[in-house]
Amino acid sequence: MAKELKDLTKRSENYSQWYNELVVKADLAEQAPVRGCMVIKPYGYAIWEKIQRTLDDKFKETGHVNAYFPLLIPKSYLSREAEHVEGFAKECAVVTHYRLKNAEDGSGVIVDPAAKLEEELIVRPTSETIIWATYKNWIKSYRDLPILCNQWANVMRWEMRPRLFLRTAEFLWQEGHTAHATREEAEQEARRMQTVYRDFVEGYMAVPVVRGVKSETERFAGALDTYTIESMTQDGKALQCGTSHFLGQNFAKAFDVQFVDKDNKLDYVWATSWGVSTRLMGALIMAHSDDNGLVLPPKLAPIQVVIVPIYKTAEDLEKISAKVNVLVDALRAKGISVKYDDADNKRPGFKFADYEVKGVPVRLALGMRDLEAGTVELMRRDTLEKETVQFEGLENTIPALLDDIQKAIFEKAKAWRDSRMVKVDSYDDFKAQIEAGNFVLAHWDGTPETEAKIKEETKATIRCIPMDFDTTEEGKCVYTGQPSHRRVLFARSY
Amino acid sequence: MAKELKDLTKRSENYSQWYNELVVKADLAEQAPVRGCMVIKPYGYAIWEKIQRTLDDKFKETGHVNAYFPLLIPKSYLSREAEHVEGFAKECAVVTHYRLKNAEDGSGVIVDPAAKLEEELIVRPTSETIIWATYKNWIKSYRDLPILCNQWANVMRWEMRPRLFLRTAEFLWQEGHTAHATREEAEQEARRMQTVYRDFVEGYMAVPVVRGVKSETERFAGALDTYTIESMTQDGKALQCGTSHFLGQNFAKAFDVQFVDKDNKLDYVWATSWGVSTRLMGALIMAHSDDNGLVLPPKLAPIQVVIVPIYKTAEDLEKISAKVNVLVDALRAKGISVKYDDADNKRPGFKFADYEVKGVPVRLALGMRDLEAGTVELMRRDTLEKETVQFEGLENTIPALLDDIQKAIFEKAKAWRDSRMVKVDSYDDFKAQIEAGNFVLAHWDGTPETEAKIKEETKATIRCIPMDFDTTEEGKCVYTGQPSHRRVLFARSY
Repeated sequence: MAKELKDLTKRSENYSQWYNELVVKADLAEQAPVRGCMVIKPYGYAIWEKIQRTLDDKFKETGHVNAYFPLLIPKSYLSREAEHVEGFAKECAVVTHYRLKNAEDGSGVIVDPAAKLEEELIVRPTSETIIWATYKNWIKSYRDLPILCNQWANVMRWEMRPRLFLRTAEFLWQEGHTAHATREEAEQEARRMQTVYRDFVEGYMAVPVVRGVKSETERFAGALDTYTIESMTQDGKALQCGTSHFLGQNFAKAFDVQFVDKDNKLDYVWATSWGVSTRLMGALIMAHSDDNGLVLPPKLAPIQVVIVPIYKTAEDLEKISAKVNVLVDALRAKGISVKYDDADNKRPGFKFADYEVKGVPVRLALGMRDLEAGTVELMRRDTLEKETVQFEGLENTIPALLDDIQKAIFEKAKAWRDSRMVKVDSYDDFKAQIEAGNFVLAHWDGTPETEAKIKEETKATIRCIPMDFDTTEEGKCVYTGQPSHRRVLFARSY
Repeated sequence: MAKELKDLTKRSENYSQWYNELVVKADLAEQAPVRGCMVIKPYGYAIWEKIQRTLDDKFKETGHVNAYFPLLIPKSYLSREAEHVEGFAKECAVVTHYRLKNAEDGSGVIVDPAAKLEEELIVRPTSETIIWATYKNWIKSYRDLPILCNQWANVMRWEMRPRLFLRTAEFLWQEGHTAHATREEAEQEARRMQTVYRDFVEGYMAVPVVRGVKSETERFAGALDTYTIESMTQDGKALQCGTSHFLGQNFAKAFDVQFVDKDNKLDYVWATSWGVSTRLMGALIMAHSDDNGLVLPPKLAPIQVVIVPIYKTAEDLEKISAKVNVLVDALRAKGISVKYDDADNKRPGFKFADYEVKGVPVRLALGMRDLEAGTVELMRRDTLEKETVQFEGLENTIPALLDDIQKAIFEKAKAWRDSRMVKVDSYDDFKAQIEAGNFVLAHWDGTPETEAKIKEETKATIRCIPMDFDTTEEGKCVYTGQPSHRRVLFARSY
């Protein structure tokens, strides 16, 4: 069984297969019996809960409140905002009936044809339409603004090529939907939430991202601007981790949401929406993990420290436990999540492999010799380095070690990402660098046509126009040779 | 506007209308544009979040973990467990298609007839079937047991007579699904969770409940035993607050989930499931609120203390704020949720009415005279009593006052409920007491036929066979005169 856990495809052999196997072997998720859907297993869900709670606190710190809007959306709502329907109304789960009945031949249940809905309902692919239909009743005057709502919910988009966490028909997410009296305030909100996302993904997930604005082609359907954060996977692709949209007055106009401003004039409300999803789990797994399994940043690890006793007799175990329990209590008192695994139905070797695959940041193992010598074997999951250290004082060194691991994981991912961010000035070089799995900064003439052709020929898309470093520079479009005033970021993506 | 908030139907005039108005006026929830569905507004959701977080902690303390299973269930799964399908497979939202397309006449989107699913999918009304289909792959041996999973999710049951929180087509809930090696362990788990629910509803919601077992007729579809907790509303009806089911081996047999036990023999797995939902919000509102609005127990109040300054000039406000801010900090340091409402676009009278309707447990108001005298006006929402107290030392008296209010609300509800729990020994008396809105303890011959006749004639059902007090006693069925060995609890219900 320990062997089976270890028996993971190497990243260098087949990155895609490595990922698929790892998600299952680390007990994070599995395919559900329903096509394209997933079951998030307890260990995977424990990580998601940490993501959720941390983000939720940050949303509240920035003035947001939670609410809940309906799962089902009347079909006609989706047609209200012209661009939105193009982008979202297609691959959806459609509810047409509201009742089943027993089959007359006793073979089971059938859909009752008499219970057909007058208007079909759509399982929400995103909630702008139903929320703006609701906001219409909440907003009369500038005094009712801003509205800063978020919801944690499940959404559904029928995916033709599903992949655990990265692309599933049903997924979990949060979606913020805000309403403002001015354009400036809404734009500021959209950018603020992009920053909240960046700070979370870098600070907690330890995943470095490029912050930027989407090109028109890559924008959210119905938005005037889409702000994004893009991470890099170990196979050199971009992964969109979160987006924040400045929606202008598009949804307010589609659902006729007007307010009386301070000067007693009627105007349409300004909007934003922003979301991150269980896709973050995919970004997390892909950023740090290795051929031995998952590598988790301590801030999101459900178990931060695992302690495995090595013993032969019940008497030995008792002695080890007496010593370990004191440490466990001391660490827990400091808010560290510790597991003392003294289960007697699994061998230490199996436990080691299991916690390695599951990415537990720190592993301590101690046997009778350690007990006599006052030592313990400590392994860091990120470097796989083992060393024998003094048991005494661990309650003080472990918190610092966890901080150290958190930083090291981020620095490693960042150094690697930075080393694969290249500037190119010819199309041949462009193609070669994309093929090699790099993030490419190149000049582009600004037209959707060129963007489409590059995508068709290289599978690379414009991930964003970066915001955190200056890409302003005179140059020529790598594809058409037309003048360009700045480089944009191209990459293949998940 | 203050008047409008106050303009609430009296409970004595029309209890049902009072409830419907209160839910909306207190900003808890509203009807969604989709029939039978609700929008849970931020203030209502903040209460639900407190319920959720408290329960979640209690589930984890008792060894449970969270996971997530799919929203959609293949239609055929519902037919697997014979009794379950009878109880659940009927009023469901049915997904038949997975794609929309643009109408050729440009009028909007239509369902794409080419995208018809081979097998229809049902929006989960509850998840036993999909979860047991999944557990089949998780369970091979007794070493894999117990499995103690919970999920927080939305579910859907097409309701013909929807009512905010109490009965909505979509609602939020948690559903625990556990798997065990022995019958004893599963039964113990079902009873343990009933106790967790009772402790929460009484200890946090301050709502007294009767703990009991359901009669066969009232059992969950597919269960061998259903444990329930029943609260009483102010119009004397029972409200089922939470149920915990001992499912025997029914679902394991339906989905063929067997395990190898310690003696190397194959057996079917034993199961439980248990859940509470946003219905608890309805129980909470109905138990304590009065003709002035909501009354919230301090442990679940999003705002526990509100402070309203009374001033004429900006200078006055500054002086008041300087004093109040110190108190706010001191209370927050003790974990108390305080709102200092110094908004200048609403009059104090409006604020008073608003916080009264919203059920904030403690209100402080202070003006310039108070400032000089070192006093403050304090109002308790539960009794509506106002008194002028010393400002000095409030940070010490308020925590105790909140505890006191929590206890007082519970005791009041309990005294009232106890006063309406009556024993009856004739059918005429039975009918009169039910009509008067009481909980009736009566002898019953134990047959579903008698139960059905009583329900038909009086609209009263057996809420439970109580567990917390002894109802064993020889007697005669109030309806048939047949011998009976104990009284059971009858009431009309929500």
